Formats: sequence, structure tokens, C-alpha cells
Amino acid sequence: MSSCFGQYLKITIFGQSHGPAVGVTLDGFPAGMEIDEENLALQMARRAPGRSDLTTPRRESDTPEFLSGVLNGRTTGQPITAVIRSEHQRPADYGDGVDLARPGHADYTGHVRYFGFEDWRGGGSFSGRLTAPVVLAGALCGQWLAGQGVTFASHALSLGEIADAPLPDEYPDAETLARLRAMPLPTLSEAAAERMREAILAAKAEGDSVGGTVEVAAYGLPAGLGAPFFDSMESVLSHLFFSIPGIKAVGFGDGFGFSALRGSEANDPFRMRDGRVTTATNRAGGVNGGITNGMTIRATLAVRPTPSIAKRQQTVSLRRMEDAELEIRGRHDPCLLPRVCPVAEAMCAIGLMEMWKERAACVR
Amino acid sequence: MSSCFGQYLKITIFGQSHGPAVGVTLDGFPAGMEIDEENLALQMARRAPGRSDLTTPRRESDTPEFLSGVLNGRTTGQPITAVIRSEHQRPADYGDGVDLARPGHADYTGHVRYFGFEDWRGGGSFSGRLTAPVVLAGALCGQWLAGQGVTFASHALSLGEIADAPLPDEYPDAETLARLRAMPLPTLSEAAAERMREAILAAKAEGDSVGGTVEVAAYGLPAGLGAPFFDSMESVLSHLFFSIPGIKAVGFGDGFGFSALRGSEANDPFRMRDGRVTTATNRAGGVNGGITNGMTIRATLAVRPTPSIAKRQQTVSLRRMEDAELEIRGRHDPCLLPRVCPVAEAMCAIGLMEMWKERAACVR
Amino acid sequence: MSSCFGQYLKITIFGQSHGPAVGVTLDGFPAGMEIDEENLALQMARRAPGRSDLTTPRRESDTPEFLSGVLNGRTTGQPITAVIRSEHQRPADYGDGVDLARPGHADYTGHVRYFGFEDWRGGGSFSGRLTAPVVLAGALCGQWLAGQGVTFASHALSLGEIADAPLPDEYPDAETLARLRAMPLPTLSEAAAERMREAILAAKAEGDSVGGTVEVAAYGLPAGLGAPFFDSMESVLSHLFFSIPGIKAVGFGDGFGFSALRGSEANDPFRMRDGRVTTATNRAGGVNGGITNGMTIRATLAVRPTPSIAKRQQTVSLRRMEDAELEIRGRHDPCLLPRVCPVAEAMCAIGLMEMWKERAACVR
Amino acid sequence: MSSCFGQYLKITIFGQSHGPAVGVTLDGFPAGMEIDEENLALQMARRAPGRSDLTTPRRESDTPEFLSGVLNGRTTGQPITAVIRSEHQRPADYGDGVDLARPGHADYTGHVRYFGFEDWRGGGSFSGRLTAPVVLAGALCGQWLAGQGVTFASHALSLGEIADAPLPDEYPDAETLARLRAMPLPTLSEAAAERMREAILAAKAEGDSVGGTVEVAAYGLPAGLGAPFFDSMESVLSHLFFSIPGIKAVGFGDGFGFSALRGSEANDPFRMRDGRVTTATNRAGGVNGGITNGMTIRATLAVRPTPSIAKRQQTVSLRRMEDAELEIRGRHDPCLLPRVCPVAEAMCAIGLMEMWKERAACVR
Repeated sequence: MSSCFGQYLKITIFGQSHGPAVGVTLDGFPAGMEIDEENLALQMARRAPGRSDLTTPRRESDTPEFLSGVLNGRTTGQPITAVIRSEHQRPADYGDGVDLARPGHADYTGHVRYFGFEDWRGGGSFSGRLTAPVVLAGALCGQWLAGQGVTFASHALSLGEIADAPLPDEYPDAETLARLRAMPLPTLSEAAAERMREAILAAKAEGDSVGGTVEVAAYGLPAGLGAPFFDSMESVLSHLFFSIPGIKAVGFGDGFGFSALRGSEANDPFRMRDGRVTTATNRAGGVNGGITNGMTIRATLAVRPTPSIAKRQQTVSLRRMEDAELEIRGRHDPCLLPRVCPVAEAMCAIGLMEMWKERAACVR
Repeated sequence: MSSCFGQYLKITIFGQSHGPAVGVTLDGFPAGMEIDEENLALQMARRAPGRSDLTTPRRESDTPEFLSGVLNGRTTGQPITAVIRSEHQRPADYGDGVDLARPGHADYTGHVRYFGFEDWRGGGSFSGRLTAPVVLAGALCGQWLAGQGVTFASHALSLGEIADAPLPDEYPDAETLARLRAMPLPTLSEAAAERMREAILAAKAEGDSVGGTVEVAAYGLPAGLGAPFFDSMESVLSHLFFSIPGIKAVGFGDGFGFSALRGSEANDPFRMRDGRVTTATNRAGGVNGGITNGMTIRATLAVRPTPSIAKRQQTVSLRRMEDAELEIRGRHDPCLLPRVCPVAEAMCAIGLMEMWKERAACVR
Repeated sequence: MSSCFGQYLKITIFGQSHGPAVGVTLDGFPAGMEIDEENLALQMARRAPGRSDLTTPRRESDTPEFLSGVLNGRTTGQPITAVIRSEHQRPADYGDGVDLARPGHADYTGHVRYFGFEDWRGGGSFSGRLTAPVVLAGALCGQWLAGQGVTFASHALSLGEIADAPLPDEYPDAETLARLRAMPLPTLSEAAAERMREAILAAKAEGDSVGGTVEVAAYGLPAGLGAPFFDSMESVLSHLFFSIPGIKAVGFGDGFGFSALRGSEANDPFRMRDGRVTTATNRAGGVNGGITNGMTIRATLAVRPTPSIAKRQQTVSLRRMEDAELEIRGRHDPCLLPRVCPVAEAMCAIGLMEMWKERAACVR
Repeated sequence: MSSCFGQYLKITIFGQSHGPAVGVTLDGFPAGMEIDEENLALQMARRAPGRSDLTTPRRESDTPEFLSGVLNGRTTGQPITAVIRSEHQRPADYGDGVDLARPGHADYTGHVRYFGFEDWRGGGSFSGRLTAPVVLAGALCGQWLAGQGVTFASHALSLGEIADAPLPDEYPDAETLARLRAMPLPTLSEAAAERMREAILAAKAEGDSVGGTVEVAAYGLPAGLGAPFFDSMESVLSHLFFSIPGIKAVGFGDGFGFSALRGSEANDPFRMRDGRVTTATNRAGGVNGGITNGMTIRATLAVRPTPSIAKRQQTVSLRRMEDAELEIRGRHDPCLLPRVCPVAEAMCAIGLMEMWKERAACVR
């Protein structure tokens, strides 16, 4: 189990879906930052379940308690630990031991890995509930980066066959960003939002779920972040993105689109603009050779349909080691996208903060 | 600069494109493995340039010298260091300081990151030459994993619009694998190989380059490898894949295809087979919840077209900080795919070895 | 701030002296261990303040709450997080900002390091209170190691000029160990205990404090633990020992005594005993070349006198940047030894567990 | 085997005593430093064997070849790799496999750890030869730190019963430091040097060896370096010091002397001096609460007598697993102190550089 990420900003998350609490420790967070409680509450609310009919009805207020690292509303430079109590865990929903492995879940693989001793209830430590402390950590990183002029945006780029417009390379107006953050399923196009909503509810009605893609962007970054060979900006960010439950593909800039291009099309020409080196296009998604070039970072994440579906499924019994059938009951998201958006932004903020500190350590 | 990867098997690579040598240290490699020199030479040759008209004519024999960690042909458990001398570096090709930043390259971003002190000649430490020690490390890991029953395969899944058949989920016959390894541009379909070859040579003739996708598979893995939350198998492998110069997207199993599926289609049903838990399909690419499930791992990598092209390009002068034009001369690959295949296999082997050791540390 | 230790067993501690709680996360702890609640409570009680007139009268019950990683009394293999609420923090004792730097404390250095934003109350994160989560982590490691046949002992080897007998190299009877663990200031010699107690109370009466040495031993270890060059057993253990507030020197086996020996005296001769390789003497303290040799590990730690003393002291005002005088009020330990003993054992257990897992990762 | 140290400046050493070369990679070293070749050669020469009759007659020129990370005499910010060829390795001296474990050496423990596959010749990777790349790395760190005003000194504080004067807390004149660096066995007192020399030669004549203590100091450091809880300055430095073969105890400032003090004696009073916070005494050795306080760092290391002695010794045969006797032949140091001095300085420079970069990463 690696619940830890980062060398410069060390993040440790803990908790299981149906345990008493989940939480996070950030070691190495800068001293002296005033925590924006309102922003923090907003980010937590974006991820929290029960926010609309598009997500699971399990409700959690997800209010963090800071146990360490904050004094008079400011970070102290010492490790920050916050815990989020689980108010509505329902261990009773889950019987007395894992047996029927849910397809697409970690029930079987977790069982092998932890020798049968794992806390399997509600997905245990594989549950999306663990993304609550991730969003908390990401919100703090995002606030610090905002002080450096960095802003994040995310939306559902597609859901099934329904597509939204891509995020612009230029920084959008603050109003657009605020609107995205306020939407249960953020999209640039209102029409796409409505169609996606219908598709989710249709799948839900059939006891099924749907997948899609999430696009996340970071505006206002300086050039020079990223530490190739092994810690290229894409390596660090993809590492974090693939930690989000349900992500099965990640692309930067044009991503898989690069495979159909020629070099003369794919290369972003450099151009001076206001005395700064920029690129005329941004197919590379803000990264050249693993290092930021000062343009907008754009990444796209493929989100699988929620594996928990109401439909009857084929599986095996881990106790009897024989074929079996399964019907999953309980509260589940018919689509992960609404909740993946804030988590993807959080992971992006965590990765950029890590590489910002890495860069700061490059003394001369 | 992070030239280091891994906590359990620590790999450090070093060298620049036009320095005297490149090399690698592996710390934590198991003791007692007899090195298969023939296999090692084969893997090195697969990546080496000048092997066919599809790659750069720069020739390097790429024969490693072991300085440490090997005694009487066996690994000792102590750190393994091997260096590969560069015989045909041509510093003179590159003038006396970086000025015109090559679009799509790290010339500009490296210049910012290293304050103008970087060894920029031939791409310095961003050069594909650094993948030689990666292949060396991967070959050793692959040999050790072969002793545990694990085999790797890779091929060009697509090049521009031309598609090859996907790798099978069942272990292919050894002959097929040997044939793939022997091909300059490995494909399952001979017809695809011919069409891809023509496309590469056509681009080369026009002073241009082409992109594509590489598929890599690992057969014979046990269930239980991978350490979520943060070190999911996909996180670790994508981290390594995105370290390969030119990779802009990575997917596992159906990858971006998941975004168009419903849960009832996406979930791989569990089925008992010969007393083992298996899945009837393998859309997940061998990983559930970040942990291997015992099925074949399949990953797809998008490879951008080589940024070094002969065509005239727009850029900036870093010395004069003004717009400029650039024509790149020298020896370059018109397509990265032939050489990415062995590197992707190497990265896959490195990542699996890391998580194998991680798993071994999970004592009871 | 590095609140994290370990690569194989990652330990993160958090909290400040006068915050709401202190706690710890252990990532990578083995699955399936039944937690011995009684032993855990005993270890926590040994370190807790207010246990005798030899320690500070601040009382804390120090009962941990497990938030993660434990199910039905057993470890799950997932990250273990436990928090210890602080019941008797008294922020009001400390005024409204650090000014007069206490000599021998981290008031000044922490002020520089955290730019004045640190939680300085009661020593903040430099407080001995942070050793509560260390003892908790060490108790879990110790329980796991006990299952492998490893036992720990510690005592006050000296206090001022008063010396106790050294720990034997042979495993002492369980009764002796139980007696040591039950003593407020553990010593082998009852006479030494009485004299040390008098010396502590005498210093206390004068508003002063006393130093001494603590000896810790680990019995029953296998040969082969430790990972030189850089992670020699001594390196790993000393790293942990020097994290304990107040430790200023550490020796292994004969320690500084080696400086006065000749090689012919210092070398422990190897001898076969019951079919096992042993050494006839154990001056090396169980470690040869940084790796355990199967003999008892013995380490000695120099403990400085508590820096918090009631006597008037010279210092500076950090606000006015001028010379000043200081009288420290509040509750303090006149001697750190009673509480360092269980912490030193805990650190020893943490270090050995780390290297045990490192060894397990050395697959063949 | 952990051949790696550091998170901010990652150092990897490789090689075995009788392999073709030893070497080191430094990842994260600052860009743009001009390498002082003369200073580098001096530091290497101080450690090199065969320099006087006090060390082994094995001669090695120990001239490093830089394979990576240096361009036009300056560091590039990319990984620095240097190798030192072994000219006079004599594998033939060592027969065909480890059998009689040398007491005090890692022959037995290395045999257990590496399952019998280790390169045992001449101590393999446990040999003092591995300190050559350490000195190389330390020299580069020392040169960078010199640019920040930091200077190192070391000497034999004692040898057997013979004592030298301690290093002063105030920066000594440059001449004194140069004299210390030029001496085969550096001491402040010429009389002590002569007596120590006689003691070494007397032991050598008897086929024996002697131990002693080395004191190392770092002048000119700023306050604020060190990252407690776990990475206190003492933790980081002791970790490195205990990696040096033959070190069995380490103390900071008064070290074990603290155990006999009262708090009122041990606390260094703070005093303003030239507008800076200083301490009137420096018993703490420049570290309060694990963080530098701007005073001189002073550490003392206990060096065991060389385990390789000519006298007949009792041991076991690892092949026959029975008691045996052993007479070691070959070239050995009768005393490790002359060569430990430059290595201890190197380790000190490495540790301080690591924490300097850690501090730089503490952005606000």
C-alpha cells in the first residue's frame, strides 16, 4: 500500500470507505499561507456525494478538522494533518466478509494483496471516499499556487458520444471558471450539459453506468517546472491522475491525436510575444521535453463507467472458489465524471506544487 | 533533474547525447542471476540506431561495460553499474551554444531550467540516447522476470492512419515473439509493416516525420502487484512510459475506449478457469483497482512524430530573444516507433520489477 | 520539516505540543497482525508524563484512536493511522508569540526555519509530546518483531556520575525485562535506581536538570539485516535515535570505547555454536560492516539534561533583537531518561522493522 | 544494498574493491559551478592510499573521469557521473571464494545478505575503496558550500590514549586549515602528531592496529538548516558518518559529555553579537532542536582499529561451517584515522548540501 506521494511535498492519505474517518498529512507545505476557508469548503463540496441526482445519495458533510500545522488560520510550515469524519458509513450494508468479487473492482486483487485481511467494506481503501483527502490536499496546494498566479479548470470533455467544447488555451474569464466550479457536471456548453445529464439518468434508470473523459487545465505557469529524465511533468501528473479510481488513459495536449500527425504539424512554433518566449499553437499541452514551457497545461483523462452497477453480473465466490452471480445493492454513482473533475484538479495542483518545490531546490 | 527512479529497485541513468558515455546503476537488483549476454545484446541492438533505413544513420555499437555488481557472469546483489561509450558523438555538429530553440524539443525549457549551463549538444540529457541505459536496465529486469514466467511483447499498433492487429490476450507462441523482436518495425501483420515502412520513407523524403502508437504487453504475471492508493500499477507504469521522449498519451486495456462504454460492457466478468480466478474478457488490461489481476497487462502509448525535421520552421533566438527561422541538419529518425518498442518493453519490465520487490517486502 | 521516515515502512508523525492531537500513519505495515492492546497500553504508559515524581506533572491518558488500517483487532495491510488527543494542552500558559528564546531549545532555530509562522507553543513540533506517536508506532513494530522472536530492553546506563550495570549480551529472563518495563526509571541495579532518583530530585529542587545515558538492546535478531553502503544498520538506527529530542551522541557496542582498543582486542572472534555462526565476544554490538551478525544489538545514547530549567538564564529577545533574561515557568521533566527509554526502544523497533522489510524485498 | 543517499541531492556510489572501477552519480547538483580541479585533486589525494608509511602501500592515482554533467569545466545541472579506475586491484590475492570470515569484517554478514553471490574480493562493496567516490562527491559539495562561505576542518582528536587539542569554535586561520589538510595524520599539536605516528608504527610492527577519534567541524553555516522531526541535522549527519566503514560512535558538540552535565551547565546562553543571534558557548555543536543555530558544527567520530591485522585470529570456515584459524596477508592500513579525516569532511559536506537544498525547497 503506498499511501504516500511526493519527495518535496510529502502527502500521506489514510482511511477506508467505512472506517471512522479519512484524512491526509502534508509534510513540507510552505509556512505562512492564510487558509481560504471558503474556497476549501467549495472544493470539498464539489467532490462530496449527494450533491445532485447525478451522484450517490450517500451524504457526508466532509468538513475537515485540522489536527496539526495550522495556527491562527495560517500554515505553520510544520506537517498539516486534517481528518474528515465519516458520518454515514454503513458497515452493516456489507455483511461479514468479502465473497462475491465485484467485477471491475479491487475486491479480488485487494484480497490477494492483503492476504484476506483487508478492510473490504465499501471498497476499503480503494473507495472513491479516499479522494476526499486528496481534494483537501489539492485545495491547499491550489490556494498556494493561486498566490503565484496559477489557476485550474476542469470539465467533462465527453460522456459516451456527447462532446463538450475543449478548454481554451487562453485563460478564460473568472466568471466562466466560477460557473464551471458551480455546476454538478461542469461543461462549457449548456446544451452538452443537458444531454450528458439525460444520458446519466438514462443509464441509472437501467441499473447501468456511463464513462467519459475529463479535461483539466492549469493556467499561468512559469517555464522550467519538471525534472526529466524520470520526473517529466507528464510522468508526475500521470502518476497522480492514474491514482484516481476509474482512470484508464491520460493524454497531454493533443494526446493520442499526435499519433496521426506529421512533425511539421505537431511542432508548436516558438514566437516572441510581449518579450516572452511563447508557442503559436499549444498541441504539446504546455510541456516540451518533460518541462513546462510557460503555456497552458492541458490533460485529458479517460474515466471508466462506474463498476458498481445494479445489473446482474457474472463473478466468482472467493470463499468457495467457484463461479457465481452477483447483484450489487447500495448507493452508487451512475457516472464518475462529476466527482472526478475536482479530484483531477486537485491532483494537478499537487503535482505542480511538488515540481515547484523541486525547482526551488535547484539552487545556484 | 531526476535521473533516479524507484524505491525498491533504484535506477539511476546518466550521460548526455554527445558526452563520452551514457550509463546506468541498478541498486537492489537480486543476487545470483546469471546474465544472458545474448539476450542483452539483442535488446540493445533493437534500440540501437542505424539498424535500418527507418532510423537515424548514426551508428553506435552500444556494448555495455559492467563496472560493478557482476562476478563470474552473475549478479552479486551489489549495485550494478554499466557504461556505454559513445563512439560517434559529434560535438562539432552543434556549434558553440544553444541559440535557435528547436520546436517540440527541450532546447528552450532545458535552457530555462538549467540557467543556460545545460549540455545542450544533441539534446543533452533529453536525447533519445539516454534510452540506451534504460534498455540495458530493462533487459536485466526482463531476464529476472523471465525466470518467474513473465514475457514481454511490443509492436507498432498504428502509424498515422495505418493500423496493425492488437496483441492477443493469450500468450502468443514464442516464434511470433521472436519474429516481432527481429523486425525493424515490429507488427503482427506483414501488410501493415510494409505500408508503415512506405509511410515513414515518404515522410523522410519530404523532410518530415510521422507519429503512431505502440502497444506493449506483459504475459504471465501473478495477481497482487501494485500499491494503491498512489502507486497503482497504472501510476507506476505511466510514470515510466511518460519518461520516454516523445510519449504524449498512455492508456491501459481499452484506454480511451472506456469513455464510450457502459458499466455493463466495461466490467470484465470473473470466471474460474483451471482452479484460478480469471476474467472472461480483459478490457481492464490486467489491472483492477491499481493491482494486477493475473491477466495480461496491455498498454498503448501515443508517440509523437519526431520533432527534428528537415523542413524550415519558425522559432526564436534565445540569444537575441527575437523571432527567427530554423533548418535542422544532422542525422535524425523520421519516426520514433521502431526504437520506442524496445524502450517501452524495458520501462514495463522496470516497473513490474519495482512492484514485484514492493510486493515481496509485504511480509506477513 | 520531515515528519516522514522510511522507504519500506513509511512512518509519518504529526501534531504539535499544544494542538488538539498528535498522531502517526504507518504505511506498509504487514497485514494480519492481531494488535496486543495490553502491550500497547503498557508502552504508551511508560512514556506518558505524570507517571512518577521524576517526570512533568502534565497528565495525558495518551489513549490512541485508530482511524484506519485495523479491522476486527487485526492490521489490514492498509495504512494505519492513530491519533492521540491532547487533553491538557494549555495554550494560555504560553502568551501570544515567541519572544525570549529558551536556551537549548528550538525556539530560535524553529523561528528562523519557519519564518516566524511556526506553532511555537510548548515547543510546537519539537516537543517531546511528538514521541507519543513514535512509541505507538514502535509498539506495533515491536509486536510484529516479537512474533519473529525479537525482544527489546532498555535502561538508564548512567545518570550524571551514577552508573548501572550494562545489559547482558545473553537474553535476560522475561521477569527481568518485565521489571525494567515497570520501573519509572529502569535500572538493573536497585541501588543505582535509588541513587539516580535522589540525584534527579536534588536537581529538581534546585530548579535544575540532569543528563545521562540510555542503553537499548535487541535480542533474537537474524543475521543479514542492514543495507550498506549508506543504509548500514548503524546509519538507520542512529538516524532514528538522533530524532529523539535531547540525544547528542550514539554508540554501538563498545562505541567510543573502540578508540582506545587495538585490532586484536576489538575484533570479535567467530565461533560455531549449536551449528550457528556466532561471535565469542560482542564488542561490535551485533553489527559487522553495517549488517547484523545475529548477536545482540546494543546501542548507547547520550541524553542531555532537560533544557527547560527554572533557573534564571541569559537569552535574547527575538522581537527586540537584544539581550534579555528568562525564567521558564510551567511543568517540565527534571530528567529525560525515564521517558527516553521507551522511545529509544520504539525507534530501535522501527529501524529494525524497516530493514526487515528491506531484506524481504531482496528476492532471489 | 543501498548505494543511494539523499532526497534533494541524490548520491549513488558503485564499484567493488577489486572491480574495474568505483564511481558516483550526483543527481540534483546545482548548475553553473566551475569545478576547482586543484582542490578536487587535493581531496582525492588526502584519502588515497600509499601516501605515507601510516597507510596501506596499495597505490592508486584515483583520478576521476567525468562521464556526465560537466561542460567546459562547469556543472550543467544534469546528473554528474565520475568513475575512478582501479589500477592495482589484485583479484589473485584473494583465492577463489570466501571461506574464512575475517573477524570484524563484513565477510560473514555480506555472505548471508547476498546469498553467497557477493563480490567478496578485498571486501567487495564494504571496502574502504568505496570512500573514494564519497570523497569525490564531498569535494564537489564542499566547493559549492565554499561559495556560500562554509569551510570544513578535521583532525585526529585522539589515537589510543594520545589526545590532540580540540578544534576551535572560531574559524581558524586559513594557514592552519591548509596545514591540517597537508598532514598525513592531521593534528593541531605537532607533538601529538609525532606520538600518534609512533603508536601507529608500533602497532604495525606487531601486526596489530589502533583506533581513535576524528573530529570534524563546519564553519560559516547559516541558522535554519535541518528538518526535524526525523531529519534533524544530527540524524542526517550521523546517518552519513555511520556509513563510513569503521565508525562505531558519533557525538555532536559535547556528545557523551552531556550525560554528566546539569541543564544550567549544558544550555548555551543566547547573546546578540554584531546584530546576530549567537550563543556564548557552543556545547550543542551548532545544532538546537535538530536545526543549525549559526554556530560551528562540531562532531566527533569513534574509529575502530582496522579489523585486518596480521596476527593469527580465531574464526569459522563458511564452507565447512566449523571453527578455524586465520592469518590475513596483504596490504592494510594499521590505522584508519588518516584516511577517515577527508571522508568525514566529505560526508559532512554531503549532508549539509542535502539540507541546504531541502531548505531552499521551503518556498514561502
